[in-house]
Amino acid sequence: MTTFAPIFVPAAVRGAVSDGAWLAAMLETESALARAEASAGVIPADAAAAIAAACDPAGFDVEAVCADGRAVGNPAEPLVRALRERVGGEAAGFVHYGATSQDVVDTAAMLVSRAAVGAIDEELDGVATACARLAAEHRSTPMAARTLLQQAVPTTFGAKAAGWTVDVVGARDRLRAVPFQAQLGGAAGTLAPLGERGLAVLGAFAAELRLAEPVVPWHTHRGSLATLGGALDAAAAACAKIGLDVVLLAQTEVGEVAEAPGGGSSTLPHKRNPIRAVRARACAALVHANAGLLGGGGNEHEHERAAGAWHAEWTALTEALAHAGGAAAAARECLEGLEVFPERMRANMSAALYAERDAFGLDDDAYLGSAEAFVDRALARIRDTSG
Amino acid sequence: MTTFAPIFVPAAVRGAVSDGAWLAAMLETESALARAEASAGVIPADAAAAIAAACDPAGFDVEAVCADGRAVGNPAEPLVRALRERVGGEAAGFVHYGATSQDVVDTAAMLVSRAAVGAIDEELDGVATACARLAAEHRSTPMAARTLLQQAVPTTFGAKAAGWTVDVVGARDRLRAVPFQAQLGGAAGTLAPLGERGLAVLGAFAAELRLAEPVVPWHTHRGSLATLGGALDAAAAACAKIGLDVVLLAQTEVGEVAEAPGGGSSTLPHKRNPIRAVRARACAALVHANAGLLGGGGNEHEHERAAGAWHAEWTALTEALAHAGGAAAAARECLEGLEVFPERMRANMSAALYAERDAFGLDDDAYLGSAEAFVDRALARIRDTSG
Amino acid sequence: MTTFAPIFVPAAVRGAVSDGAWLAAMLETESALARAEASAGVIPADAAAAIAAACDPAGFDVEAVCADGRAVGNPAEPLVRALRERVGGEAAGFVHYGATSQDVVDTAAMLVSRAAVGAIDEELDGVATACARLAAEHRSTPMAARTLLQQAVPTTFGAKAAGWTVDVVGARDRLRAVPFQAQLGGAAGTLAPLGERGLAVLGAFAAELRLAEPVVPWHTHRGSLATLGGALDAAAAACAKIGLDVVLLAQTEVGEVAEAPGGGSSTLPHKRNPIRAVRARACAALVHANAGLLGGGGNEHEHERAAGAWHAEWTALTEALAHAGGAAAAARECLEGLEVFPERMRANMSAALYAERDAFGLDDDAYLGSAEAFVDRALARIRDTSG
Amino acid sequence: MTTFAPIFVPAAVRGAVSDGAWLAAMLETESALARAEASAGVIPADAAAAIAAACDPAGFDVEAVCADGRAVGNPAEPLVRALRERVGGEAAGFVHYGATSQDVVDTAAMLVSRAAVGAIDEELDGVATACARLAAEHRSTPMAARTLLQQAVPTTFGAKAAGWTVDVVGARDRLRAVPFQAQLGGAAGTLAPLGERGLAVLGAFAAELRLAEPVVPWHTHRGSLATLGGALDAAAAACAKIGLDVVLLAQTEVGEVAEAPGGGSSTLPHKRNPIRAVRARACAALVHANAGLLGGGGNEHEHERAAGAWHAEWTALTEALAHAGGAAAAARECLEGLEVFPERMRANMSAALYAERDAFGLDDDAYLGSAEAFVDRALARIRDTSG
Repeated sequence: MTTFAPIFVPAAVRGAVSDGAWLAAMLETESALARAEASAGVIPADAAAAIAAACDPAGFDVEAVCADGRAVGNPAEPLVRALRERVGGEAAGFVHYGATSQDVVDTAAMLVSRAAVGAIDEELDGVATACARLAAEHRSTPMAARTLLQQAVPTTFGAKAAGWTVDVVGARDRLRAVPFQAQLGGAAGTLAPLGERGLAVLGAFAAELRLAEPVVPWHTHRGSLATLGGALDAAAAACAKIGLDVVLLAQTEVGEVAEAPGGGSSTLPHKRNPIRAVRARACAALVHANAGLLGGGGNEHEHERAAGAWHAEWTALTEALAHAGGAAAAARECLEGLEVFPERMRANMSAALYAERDAFGLDDDAYLGSAEAFVDRALARIRDTSG
Repeated sequence: MTTFAPIFVPAAVRGAVSDGAWLAAMLETESALARAEASAGVIPADAAAAIAAACDPAGFDVEAVCADGRAVGNPAEPLVRALRERVGGEAAGFVHYGATSQDVVDTAAMLVSRAAVGAIDEELDGVATACARLAAEHRSTPMAARTLLQQAVPTTFGAKAAGWTVDVVGARDRLRAVPFQAQLGGAAGTLAPLGERGLAVLGAFAAELRLAEPVVPWHTHRGSLATLGGALDAAAAACAKIGLDVVLLAQTEVGEVAEAPGGGSSTLPHKRNPIRAVRARACAALVHANAGLLGGGGNEHEHERAAGAWHAEWTALTEALAHAGGAAAAARECLEGLEVFPERMRANMSAALYAERDAFGLDDDAYLGSAEAFVDRALARIRDTSG
Repeated sequence: MTTFAPIFVPAAVRGAVSDGAWLAAMLETESALARAEASAGVIPADAAAAIAAACDPAGFDVEAVCADGRAVGNPAEPLVRALRERVGGEAAGFVHYGATSQDVVDTAAMLVSRAAVGAIDEELDGVATACARLAAEHRSTPMAARTLLQQAVPTTFGAKAAGWTVDVVGARDRLRAVPFQAQLGGAAGTLAPLGERGLAVLGAFAAELRLAEPVVPWHTHRGSLATLGGALDAAAAACAKIGLDVVLLAQTEVGEVAEAPGGGSSTLPHKRNPIRAVRARACAALVHANAGLLGGGGNEHEHERAAGAWHAEWTALTEALAHAGGAAAAARECLEGLEVFPERMRANMSAALYAERDAFGLDDDAYLGSAEAFVDRALARIRDTSG
Repeated sequence: MTTFAPIFVPAAVRGAVSDGAWLAAMLETESALARAEASAGVIPADAAAAIAAACDPAGFDVEAVCADGRAVGNPAEPLVRALRERVGGEAAGFVHYGATSQDVVDTAAMLVSRAAVGAIDEELDGVATACARLAAEHRSTPMAARTLLQQAVPTTFGAKAAGWTVDVVGARDRLRAVPFQAQLGGAAGTLAPLGERGLAVLGAFAAELRLAEPVVPWHTHRGSLATLGGALDAAAAACAKIGLDVVLLAQTEVGEVAEAPGGGSSTLPHKRNPIRAVRARACAALVHANAGLLGGGGNEHEHERAAGAWHAEWTALTEALAHAGGAAAAARECLEGLEVFPERMRANMSAALYAERDAFGLDDDAYLGSAEAFVDRALARIRDTSG
């Protein structure tokens, strides 16, 4: 129950992780299963066609399915019942053939995740592009570097943006590398009713959905989910780092950047709040909390199906995806409209900043050290990975 | 975005924490503020009446308010604008007088929490009653106590239920003791525009809403929110402990209890899954993750208004309330329908269980030790607190 | 393994939570048990005397006990063996009579916690005193209030310190209210070998150690541990809030406060880092992470003894205590040496700050609103609770 | 402060993450820096030789260094002072030349992590080997698969072990892929005093230590630390999953496996507790809590050096490494000594198990489905990655 969701989560991501999207993904899963089983000769081709035709989300009421699911603790069982009724006739008996509820929900979770990650990736790309643009534009714009929030030595704003760039590109690439695996194991991971054709069905099923084929069912081995959760967490954290730096640079007393107008206040219309940066930070905190329920230590899955840990994942995954999208969108909006004030940056540079220069006997050319060279390295890095 | 919410969260709690409930609570806050300010002579009485009349949630579209709130990062600012428009005339200028967005959202959060906690408390009371009934009925029903999941010594099922009872009653009482404080500080905690009548307004405002009056504004001091979060976490954990024990006792190989029918499977209709126990455990994991964002270490609120930590609380609070309700409802349903099989309990008691009895030379009367006395103490405890 | 512990944790707290302190507390527990059992007529008085005499920590090697404990997964079993050997003769058979390892470790945990909380409480008292002093001294020192890190309206530094005061006093009082309960249930919570004298022994045992007597054994009901964890978390968070505000006020560009000299740098000796504030924040993050393992949702304890969740508590409790002490000591040191620069505060106040004053037509007397009144309320609050 | 560390953490890992190991790694870093700077012509070769010679850990007292570090909040500054004193003469001025404390601590963290991960990897390899052996030996040993802890359909013990194998191998490979990066940026990430030779020094420094060369300094971009934390978490979770299954299978009423003798009890010597499995679960909970402080959302690093988040990492990293080692060692010991009871597995298989077989009209050959094929796939997977 993301409170006030439209404030935080972009519409594309909200749509991708809604209950309706989950339902559609479960139906896509049932359809793919039927087609895979027909192609492997396990069920008749016309039954598969009838099932696929019936898997139109418009024919199902997600609220009713969830309400029915309370008794059994998952939405797949009532959905399968409703689908069988809709298919009717002999073909009804081939719906969900040999599969278990977790096959459907886990596979749907991967489809939902892939779609949401696609939308998040676009936002992250926008963040990376905006970072790189700032790095290039301000490659040589001097400003104070600050450690423990004290001015330390000179740097350039481009070097700061270069750090953001490398972090965001790394997080984006990590997210792109996450494998999305199909799930199909039947009642307890043996694909028993499919007999010797089980592995053929598994391969065809994964191929139908363009998902990776797992070595073994992963009903209670959630390492790949942890990989996804970790990647979402890192992506949101990279966005929150940008948000934090912007909030600090936009302070009244610092005034080195400002977000585009918009972040007003209900009492003080003159204020220009860095609200996109704020949203990025808030979203990242929520991603972190929810990612902690995805596959790491303390999330234990008993035997061949967990008695609780699995059920907690659905909301945790949805929230992690939603707020990762929120963090990325907020960081992108923040940077795309960012005003940068080089004069203020220079004016803020305190005398103490030059202490190191003087201590080391550096000349004015040298006192920025390798700041510009690091910008160039960061820009090369983003070029390498976006080609 | 609680995925498949109706599976986990009871309708009363879902309603109490919905975006619509938040909106209604914000309007109730604006209405109470106007009335308090009129009573303190800060704004005209007829303006207050006009404002109060306009604070009917039916006149507002929560989706539109949230969409408008994206630019400023909170829902109060667009709501105030919409309310001013609705009030119109001179009275419009007295809407939200001297208050800040966080006053409205924080106070609304306390109203939402109080309502939700009321619904959770009813469920917890049901859990406690069911625990106590089982403790009384099975005061002397022998069963194996298990440590590290190995049979250790004999106990009674009543003693096990007595442990649940004391834990749930303690958690319920802790939740009942949580203070719900009004929030009113104005733009930055000084109540500046209210002048010398500020404290009078604060007192009247809190009284209107039957909320506690804080010593000072708590915009960035979230200790009381941490108290609420901790109480929800402990309540859900007490319910999850019951769920865990039931799941273990209901194992096929143990078979000492069974949930009421209902928890079927999409493949195996013969299965009788302990699904309510499972739901309690899943909900508790989600409460824990979200309670961690409410006021503890790592949730830092800068100066007089946080730049992110506050915004993350809204969803975290909603989720913590929703799933605490879910855990309590699940535990209640689990225990109210629980079948207990004393014969199986006795049959399961292994020879090794008697090792301690023999080692200590205990007779048959003594080998249950103080199990029954502990039941009596637990029942006295629940009587003391429920009078 | 607190890395570089002396940097973060004050010596008194380090001592209170060391392995040696745990060992001493376990021996104190064994001694109290023997005396309680003698007083209840369960074991001979001279056996109790012999046991009590042998419970001198100097006679035991904590490293060796822990190494021996690896095989059984806890330190109590090897300690009991070593103690029996040390006692020798017939009395050896009365060592640990009727108790279980968890009775000893849990009771020791409460003794360790009580001692550590005592030391933490002293530090918190120092923090509260320093806060109150600053609030009183700067009751009328004007400064900018900042929301979302933007200057908003005027406040006083006293009002800021008043907020800290109320938060810290609340956290301190919450910590003082935590109950420390004895644990005694025997092998699985029935006190079986003690027969009808079980409850008498339990009462005497708790009294010997000045611990609360639990209604029932709490081996797998950890609500009271969650209460302790939550109180430590809230205390550390209150200290971290102070740290955060100090870090922000001490920024080069703000310069409204400075910590006492000391926080130098390995490269830049001119820097005056707010290192105590930094330590408070770091410690609070560690408290939060560890408190999450103490009794909340997701920490499940099976049946009558947990198969893992209990064992994880020992380190989590030690770390939470250690770093809560670290946070409090750091905040105290930070505030006790804090230099405040009222001129800089006034000079930093931007023109925009007066927008509200002008918008509301406030005069200069009124523009601080109730800031001073809130200081008075906070000071009254600390007087009420420290009397 | 890992309480009772020898119970949980193997000696090799304890050694690798001790304060002494951190100190040695900091000295190795200083030595490598001097040598790299000499090779780049930044400092004289004989100064580098003098520094390298002085970097013998035996010459330093880690307790004293930490005590000195309290004032500045890190151990590098006092260590550098001590090292300069030890080097003496003109060469003293070239100690730590152009570096900052965080360069030393972060690089040391990577050296410590690499060594600890090496030891953890060995343990994980042992876990994987033991899993694979069990999978191969019990490829066709029938047992009940259990979902929600209810018997569901038949599987083989080999298939269960195959699931463990794939999970552990995946986690091990993920851990092996973690990059360990050198850190060198100077006071604020510009390498200013090194002038145009900065990048050459960075490259030589990384090469000296066989660490990866970062694109830009990562003082406040902690994505790679999050990668390490996530990998440790996933590895420990994979071990805890094994622990959970073993605890459940070893229940008195199930009795399908038993750990090697050793896990006795202080009261009940007949008990054979699955204590290694218990230790794996406890360790994984601790890894998870600490990994949450490593680089994910909510761990914010300000500007060019964090004012708290960095300082919290040291203990969190040490604990995460230590307990990941603990989890892996426990799982390895658990499986290496595991007794498996095929007769009991078969005897436990309830009539209900055959419901699916009958419902689908499967014959006896088919009812294990692809269980054996999945074993073969898992064994192929481990062969592929261990070649």
